[in-house]
Amino acid sequence: MFIGAQVSLYPMTSGFVDVIMSSLGALDPYREDLRIETDDMSTLMVGPPEALTGAMRDLFAAASGSGEHVTMHVTLSRGCPGEPDDPSCHCEALVEAQDKSLEERRRIAAAAVADAPDLGAPIDVQFSLYVLGQDRHMDEIYGCIDFLKETGVFLKSKNFCTRLRGDAGAVFAAIREAFLRFGPAEGHVTIDLTASANSPSPKASAA
Amino acid sequence: MFIGAQVSLYPMTSGFVDVIMSSLGALDPYREDLRIETDDMSTLMVGPPEALTGAMRDLFAAASGSGEHVTMHVTLSRGCPGEPDDPSCHCEALVEAQDKSLEERRRIAAAAVADAPDLGAPIDVQFSLYVLGQDRHMDEIYGCIDFLKETGVFLKSKNFCTRLRGDAGAVFAAIREAFLRFGPAEGHVTIDLTASANSPSPKASAA
Repeated sequence: MFIGAQVSLYPMTSGFVDVIMSSLGALDPYREDLRIETDDMSTLMVGPPEALTGAMRDLFAAASGSGEHVTMHVTLSRGCPGEPDDPSCHCEALVEAQDKSLEERRRIAAAAVADAPDLGAPIDVQFSLYVLGQDRHMDEIYGCIDFLKETGVFLKSKNFCTRLRGDAGAVFAAIREAFLRFGPAEGHVTIDLTASANSPSPKASAA
Repeated sequence: MFIGAQVSLYPMTSGFVDVIMSSLGALDPYREDLRIETDDMSTLMVGPPEALTGAMRDLFAAASGSGEHVTMHVTLSRGCPGEPDDPSCHCEALVEAQDKSLEERRRIAAAAVADAPDLGAPIDVQFSLYVLGQDRHMDEIYGCIDFLKETGVFLKSKNFCTRLRGDAGAVFAAIREAFLRFGPAEGHVTIDLTASANSPSPKASAA
């Protein structure tokens, strides 16, 4: 299995280079577990999902600590048939999920979010989960949305995506669980995610 | 069928609100054909694909004309089973594609890109096409990549996505064709897209 993400950080300030550069230190604890390569549009991270979501969480929390309006876009992918198998991406949680019912996976995912650390970084996220290569993909999507509604970070459903709001710890735990527990363990699953912090726009309310 | 996009514009400047506000006029010609609703994270656009991709192209070209480093993220979706049918989204090109072979669709798509207008706005894009709800989704993806390689705006393949570079006219024509011609006409197809202009990073080369 090959698991990874393309990650881009966007600080809405003329000092955007400084905000990006001063946030990169947040990736240091993950450099041993992840392959990290940057080009002019995004940073590729390859490795196990726990380290992946931890790295993007800590990167975004660090950038949001600048106080500037920052956003981040992430394309997360596991099991893409076009990518080579990579032993560094091994994930025990995926193996364990293999034979569990949707109901059981929802319960495990919710418990994992309840255990998330509090980072003191309030953020907004919207994301779409895609389960590819199978007929009944919407069952897994609806199961995932039911799980999200139980997490405490669910804000609302929007067209094509789901809005989360809360501390970066719980929000990224919810994203990690959505990515790991829904869709077949050996299947091709992707997430299209946007995070935002310190936006001057009036905050959307739950609906 | 329901067709639409969530669109977010990110100018990397402390004057980001001004750049966004002064670019919004580019949407005026499309307001009759599209339903457009903005919240604190993105702008929902619903309507036929030609107007959708035209609106996001012109919005991004206008923002890039500011000279600031700007990026845009778009989640495009057609045929999501969770959305209601909407007659305003009717698309003749999708109906026509219904019975055509992959080879034939590739040819039509390439011709449409060759006919694209030149907007004088050089941009970079990376995007992923997702064909949901069917077993052999990668055939359509590989067919789409073959088409992109013939367009003149293909830069390179990356993990999880494809890089395009060129004038906004040809690049967004390629995206529109990828969205319309690949995956079943009545199927659930999405695109996760990031555009960038005026980046100070050294430009990536083709590889």
